[in-house]
Amino acid sequence: MSDNRILDIISSPADLKLLSNEELSILASEIRQEIVSVTSKTGGHVASSLGAVEIILALHSLLDCPKDKIVFDVGHQAYAHKLVTGRLKDFPTLRTYGGMSGFPKPSESPYDVHYSGHASDSLSVALGLAEARDLSGADNKVVALIGDAALSGGMAFEALNNIGQAQTPMVIILNDNEMSISHNVGALMKHLGYMRASSQYRQARDTMQEHLESSGPVGKALTSFGRNMKESMKQFVIPHSMIFEQLGIVCTAPVDGHNIAQLRETLRAVLAANGPVLMHVVTRKGEGYMPAVRNPEKFHGIGPYNIATGEVIKSDKPSAPKYTNVFGSALVKEAETNQDIVAITAAMKGGTGLDAFAEKFPKRFVDTGISEEHAVGFAGGLAAGGKKPVVALYSTFMQRAIDQTIINVALPKLDVVFAIDRAGIVGADGPTHHGVFDLVYARMVPNMRVLAPSNEAELVHSLHTALAMGGPFAIRYPRGEAEGVPLPEVPEVLPEGKARMVREGDDVALLAFGRMVGYACKAAEALEQQGISVRVVDMRWVKPLDADAIREAAGTKLVVTVEEGVIAGGAGEGVLGEMARMGLHTPALNLGISDAFVTQGGVGQLLHEQGLDAEGIAASVKDRYQQLN
Amino acid sequence: MSDNRILDIISSPADLKLLSNEELSILASEIRQEIVSVTSKTGGHVASSLGAVEIILALHSLLDCPKDKIVFDVGHQAYAHKLVTGRLKDFPTLRTYGGMSGFPKPSESPYDVHYSGHASDSLSVALGLAEARDLSGADNKVVALIGDAALSGGMAFEALNNIGQAQTPMVIILNDNEMSISHNVGALMKHLGYMRASSQYRQARDTMQEHLESSGPVGKALTSFGRNMKESMKQFVIPHSMIFEQLGIVCTAPVDGHNIAQLRETLRAVLAANGPVLMHVVTRKGEGYMPAVRNPEKFHGIGPYNIATGEVIKSDKPSAPKYTNVFGSALVKEAETNQDIVAITAAMKGGTGLDAFAEKFPKRFVDTGISEEHAVGFAGGLAAGGKKPVVALYSTFMQRAIDQTIINVALPKLDVVFAIDRAGIVGADGPTHHGVFDLVYARMVPNMRVLAPSNEAELVHSLHTALAMGGPFAIRYPRGEAEGVPLPEVPEVLPEGKARMVREGDDVALLAFGRMVGYACKAAEALEQQGISVRVVDMRWVKPLDADAIREAAGTKLVVTVEEGVIAGGAGEGVLGEMARMGLHTPALNLGISDAFVTQGGVGQLLHEQGLDAEGIAASVKDRYQQLN
Repeated sequence: MSDNRILDIISSPADLKLLSNEELSILASEIRQEIVSVTSKTGGHVASSLGAVEIILALHSLLDCPKDKIVFDVGHQAYAHKLVTGRLKDFPTLRTYGGMSGFPKPSESPYDVHYSGHASDSLSVALGLAEARDLSGADNKVVALIGDAALSGGMAFEALNNIGQAQTPMVIILNDNEMSISHNVGALMKHLGYMRASSQYRQARDTMQEHLESSGPVGKALTSFGRNMKESMKQFVIPHSMIFEQLGIVCTAPVDGHNIAQLRETLRAVLAANGPVLMHVVTRKGEGYMPAVRNPEKFHGIGPYNIATGEVIKSDKPSAPKYTNVFGSALVKEAETNQDIVAITAAMKGGTGLDAFAEKFPKRFVDTGISEEHAVGFAGGLAAGGKKPVVALYSTFMQRAIDQTIINVALPKLDVVFAIDRAGIVGADGPTHHGVFDLVYARMVPNMRVLAPSNEAELVHSLHTALAMGGPFAIRYPRGEAEGVPLPEVPEVLPEGKARMVREGDDVALLAFGRMVGYACKAAEALEQQGISVRVVDMRWVKPLDADAIREAAGTKLVVTVEEGVIAGGAGEGVLGEMARMGLHTPALNLGISDAFVTQGGVGQLLHEQGLDAEGIAASVKDRYQQLN
Repeated sequence: MSDNRILDIISSPADLKLLSNEELSILASEIRQEIVSVTSKTGGHVASSLGAVEIILALHSLLDCPKDKIVFDVGHQAYAHKLVTGRLKDFPTLRTYGGMSGFPKPSESPYDVHYSGHASDSLSVALGLAEARDLSGADNKVVALIGDAALSGGMAFEALNNIGQAQTPMVIILNDNEMSISHNVGALMKHLGYMRASSQYRQARDTMQEHLESSGPVGKALTSFGRNMKESMKQFVIPHSMIFEQLGIVCTAPVDGHNIAQLRETLRAVLAANGPVLMHVVTRKGEGYMPAVRNPEKFHGIGPYNIATGEVIKSDKPSAPKYTNVFGSALVKEAETNQDIVAITAAMKGGTGLDAFAEKFPKRFVDTGISEEHAVGFAGGLAAGGKKPVVALYSTFMQRAIDQTIINVALPKLDVVFAIDRAGIVGADGPTHHGVFDLVYARMVPNMRVLAPSNEAELVHSLHTALAMGGPFAIRYPRGEAEGVPLPEVPEVLPEGKARMVREGDDVALLAFGRMVGYACKAAEALEQQGISVRVVDMRWVKPLDADAIREAAGTKLVVTVEEGVIAGGAGEGVLGEMARMGLHTPALNLGISDAFVTQGGVGQLLHEQGLDAEGIAASVKDRYQQLN
């Protein structure tokens, strides 16, 4: 900790009100140092948080939180907010097990309004808060902070449409850093670029004044404010031909998001408006830390890094490839011989390993931006037109496209492969990001086949199988490092609905799905040493399940299913259903994610907490097995 | 059938190319008569289909389908399309079991591109078809036909955003009938109204010409076409300040959607454009049939009616109230004493029984328009602000908001009640509309409670219970007539996780959910007469399940679960999970919807097909019971 930091005496946002603009600028700088210092050890969402420091200070210096509400979209920008709301001391525990969340989290602080994490939802939540305020006759302010990329999500548009109609006071801060997670996509982004270029300083001040005066009560509020400080008027241009304006939301011209004085002036005005205002703020991702400015994509979400060089700190042990990269390479290989393959993602190009594909087959790659619903509907259209789309999404974000999966892909029985990345426990990102529902929502859908590969070789076979069999097909695999097994030279078509015996045993049968196969094997070894003979089956197929493997498993004394997903509605219950259908009444035990949201932490820690590491599996099995005897 | 109808000689759209505009107008009139004649017997989506007749004739007279593709949004407008694509003879079977679908359905005809039914998906599918065409080097046309109301859905915006960027030729026909299912909502609708008022005939033709010439290759294509028919130029105004334009999609000025000549002229031009064009067509719902014009809401979806009067034909038997209306009345009563209740729906005001609520508590009612994602996020915001929102959606459309239910409601554990209407088999609307997944997607969510009332009295208690207990809460109930039981004077709080014994019996226990309780009772009576003593339990709670009731059920020789939803991941599998946890190994049987999409037909017919009527349940139970002995 440096000496005499302003940051150290900020115990709540109220303290910010005592600071001058110059002091706030110094504080911004201290906060950036703190963010870099801590995230260099913990990893985190560095670039976005560095870019939003001044916005957050300006907000908290004028608002009266927690009475006033700041709703963060996605929440990658929230570190400065955490640091000035009494959480400086805990900041070094960022993203660790039992530590501070990397996202706003209501159960962590009264200053956190909403569990941020999924893009494009802040405007809906903010409108809800604003209307709740109106119904209660209260007068608190509501501000949503949303990045340019998140605006492409349909939910944000649905909300804008309602905000424009409701006309209740609320401020939308568009944090325009000219980039989404990977890159700008979509016509809306072009429109924003156009706004940037055309509207900033082109119109004379008098003209602006006229526009303001003619734009209703909100404009008048801005005008009367503006009259007192003509110099600041340049940020109050209300550009014509903007989408937001047409939806009934008054907009400001772009404001420099790293200029505290400008931000506060504009904010003071828009907070006084009596209708919805969009304040357009231009920021730079990574501001104040050159490695992040130079490479904002790398610093979007990053592990521990060397502050001086910006290099990620690699662990000493040689690591296995990531599932994501294995998928990406395998898809490139498949696409070399199959011209009909088109890869689609929704603002997760790098995250789903599609970089190489996009480079090699630019015409056959589509990043639809943050828009899971459209991505899946679009895939349906491509497949109806004879193509073989592969849609790569994170499990948690595919939750946005379940209806489209049902109606636009499964009902017409189209050849769409869903590559569901980040399935299961994802680690430090916590409850909004774990992919623990996909086994349920995939297997409930008619016409859908579902594979859960247990290692990277199986993933390669799974992709090949999905493309060979056609039809709606989901493959789900975890985030992070794979198992380190050799990759196949030639991928195989896996026989449909057939499991793979991994280990023989007679007392207990462990029917494991996906990554749980490895843990099940270790558990089996431990149990064997305690005199319990344990079979392990890599079930491979979540749908259709292997009835033969289940029947054989029912020949042991205890059938145990192990999956990295919620138990309610999951593959394990599917196994019970198969057993009931076949009239098999062997004692059974379903292991999986319990019926509660899973916290953040290391994947190993969380699997341990859930009783899904080798130790936990062995303990549960032993406990239950002993009850039988 | 009248004599000498043009309609009778139209065997495929190719025949339309031989007709003059006048003949097409006569045909339009014949088609309207046919639609009214048939739907007066079958019921159907009358108003929309009557409004779109000329659009469809104009399209088919210029396109070369099925090579060219028409993608219908929602599909309520498609009857004329069916009549001119070789399906006149089957039209009287509309919406019946084994008959013609009320929606476009690819398995019914090569002219049907896409399973329409869920709003706002046509643009995504159309873009997919257009890009598939481009990748294949083909040159077919792609046209999406979307109503104004469906444009508010976020998926449509996500698609527009991508269409504006992709700039591949496709035509979006905006069928602007100035109304959604219930009424216009949202700022976008206001914007459309503004477009209608301001752009139509205000600008001189020369100005239009300039605009066209300055608007890039698409505009130029329109211009060069326009030069040859100055008179038709008035429909080629490209109004400023339009959302679509800003997204890079060229727009036409509003065209009279009942003027075949104008429609064809404009269409011919926009089909020749080399980029995306939105053709703005103004139609009147119900056109040509006065009762529907006067009351388009009533004729949106209607049962059999008297052609002369427009009155719905009522059946003779006195009918029970509808679940929908019981819910609506119960909510009004609750809201009288609970000021915090806010009712939300997404363009299903009448459909979910909220009319009376909206009238009585206009400030506490919000129709967000077609926007399920936002509706649920908005409810989360209201609840975070201290309100008690009740979100009323159809089961099939709530599939759009599963992620928001998880992230914006369940994770923060907010007091939001989901009133899931149209759960289970819905009847004539068929596979896109059955609500057979909600038991699965509701019960997989942590912190969620789920009730499935078995009759209208139970529904009243369920709503009261949900509001009393707070927290994320889902109540699911069927479409249509309830059971005819008396409604409670004073609603009760149902004890959490406690089932209700309906009928004693020792051989078999039927654990039934929702409407299946009544069928289970009848099945039990039939089985009793065959010497099998059958207990029936109204499980009430899907989550948490009643472990005691399950344990007691396991004391019989056979536990049978019965639910009106898919078996995979449903409540029945949950019962198996409870049994396994408790170490109970009684033979069990899960009855529910099989793993396939359910066709259209009468609810009774479809439940029979699924083996879920009394007869089917009795047969399955008897069969399985006999195997045991």
